[in-house]
Amino acid sequence: MQIQEVFDLVKDDMINVEEVFKKNLSSSVPLVSKVGEYILNSGGKRFRPLLLLLCARLCNYNGESHVPLAGVMEFIHTATLLHDDVVDSANMRRGNAAANTVWGDGASILVGDFLLSKAFTMAVTYGNDRVLNVLSHSTTRMAEGEMLQLVKHSDIGMSEEDYFEVVANKTAVLFSSSSQVAAILGEVELEQEVALANYGMRIGTAYQLMDDCLDYVSTDNALGKAVGNDLREGKVTLPLIHAFKSANETDRSVLKAAIEADEFDESKLKEVLGIIERCGGIEYAIEYAGKLVEEAKKDLELFDPVVERAALEAVADYVIERSF
Amino acid sequence: MQIQEVFDLVKDDMINVEEVFKKNLSSSVPLVSKVGEYILNSGGKRFRPLLLLLCARLCNYNGESHVPLAGVMEFIHTATLLHDDVVDSANMRRGNAAANTVWGDGASILVGDFLLSKAFTMAVTYGNDRVLNVLSHSTTRMAEGEMLQLVKHSDIGMSEEDYFEVVANKTAVLFSSSSQVAAILGEVELEQEVALANYGMRIGTAYQLMDDCLDYVSTDNALGKAVGNDLREGKVTLPLIHAFKSANETDRSVLKAAIEADEFDESKLKEVLGIIERCGGIEYAIEYAGKLVEEAKKDLELFDPVVERAALEAVADYVIERSF
Repeated sequence: MQIQEVFDLVKDDMINVEEVFKKNLSSSVPLVSKVGEYILNSGGKRFRPLLLLLCARLCNYNGESHVPLAGVMEFIHTATLLHDDVVDSANMRRGNAAANTVWGDGASILVGDFLLSKAFTMAVTYGNDRVLNVLSHSTTRMAEGEMLQLVKHSDIGMSEEDYFEVVANKTAVLFSSSSQVAAILGEVELEQEVALANYGMRIGTAYQLMDDCLDYVSTDNALGKAVGNDLREGKVTLPLIHAFKSANETDRSVLKAAIEADEFDESKLKEVLGIIERCGGIEYAIEYAGKLVEEAKKDLELFDPVVERAALEAVADYVIERSF
Repeated sequence: MQIQEVFDLVKDDMINVEEVFKKNLSSSVPLVSKVGEYILNSGGKRFRPLLLLLCARLCNYNGESHVPLAGVMEFIHTATLLHDDVVDSANMRRGNAAANTVWGDGASILVGDFLLSKAFTMAVTYGNDRVLNVLSHSTTRMAEGEMLQLVKHSDIGMSEEDYFEVVANKTAVLFSSSSQVAAILGEVELEQEVALANYGMRIGTAYQLMDDCLDYVSTDNALGKAVGNDLREGKVTLPLIHAFKSANETDRSVLKAAIEADEFDESKLKEVLGIIERCGGIEYAIEYAGKLVEEAKKDLELFDPVVERAALEAVADYVIERSF
């Protein structure tokens, strides 16, 4: 199944999710709605809502709460984008000026808080205690993941273990929550709920691994921001960690100097890319992601081979096939 | 009753609230706990927990949830302090370096997110749907209040109406939630719940009015930051709004220039203070606060004249008597 067919499968629900966005962005302060609309309409793939909607159908959920809860996932995601761009002093997001570039850090911080609070308001209305528990633990872990990333900023000695903790928390946990919340709605057996939570965790991790690879090997246009951005921001990711582990002394000192530089030397980008390539840093990360995707597909084996299961398998494949 | 006697009344509960803080600040990322402890132990008055604990007793609540929920209120409050100091580029908070000055904006934003998420986790565990509803609406309104303040930054034409909307949302709503949540726990009649919510709203508003007055007329030492800070940050508050409305043309242009200046001219502070004094801006705001406090005490008349009611009356008086 192609990813477009997957989206077609939940087209009607997704239209309703977009309505949920609109409705919940309304505010007595017009700038809140404006910044919120800007970031929500900046080309996001709606990956987390897609997961929730597909999993809800896979779990034979027949109610109406999956639509607002899919909206909750995107609101939480969007809130963290706004905050992360301030934390990273990012200028660009998906080919457009980042919200903090347009309206300043203050507006991005506060609209992020607004979206997170709205997400909880919606979750209180449409979720139950278990859903709320999953969500509040997720947002806690997301903040911790971002903090660990901040602490490990410019640290070439960052371990694979720390890297995977950052990835699990800052990215994968919200994928995992999206599929788990659907399982809770569908009231499936605990074993199936755990399987879906694991599925989300694995494809979320693979998603971030690919993001981190694409940051090195994509093009500026496809990324919507400059290639080598993680390096420039002092973010140590798996391709670099692997390269540093296997490089010779000379290359290691080049990598160390590049990540530790206060002001990144653009002329060094090619050299760093060359070292990562020689050490197979990208292949290593992609292979890792590939294994996760295979395991994620195995998680689905507890479910009947219905069209939604095929769709979720296609989503898993897409995560590592996408080029942006 | 003196404010110290009021605090003594709930001393044991308050010790348990501090334990709740400690327990919920633990994190796999040590810097999260460190920044959290720093801001939580920076001399806050624990006013919102105090309100919740007193109101819970007034409402004859006999359970255990009032302690963690009092902790929730302080966590939410503390999260907004961290974010607001970044939004305002503040250097000082209660006589100490602001967290963003010590650890940077990124850490303050992310630990704020952590505290807010932890607050919701605690609220999900110890609250019910109505409590969660009140809390999530409060945090939404708090973000909107801060955004309106940001939009009205350096705007000498800010109306009293806008000012009171900012104050209601950014400050009073969390006071109101603190007393209302206690009423929900105590399962009192709706009329009493509304009265306590109103009580909190009025003293919260009076509290912010006094804050805004003290910013002009206190001393640097008592404030723990420089006098005239709001003016320096471009924040238009009631003393200034009132002065601008009643000043003559010459004075109005001085006020306008002072608030609109990109870089505040310190030599103008005395002149601005003189104009505010001549126009009775401080008296106007204090008188307003005094009326709110009297109304707040009337809200309590639906309750028997027990010691907790006397304590809440003392809290109301303290709000306008305090000098820092």
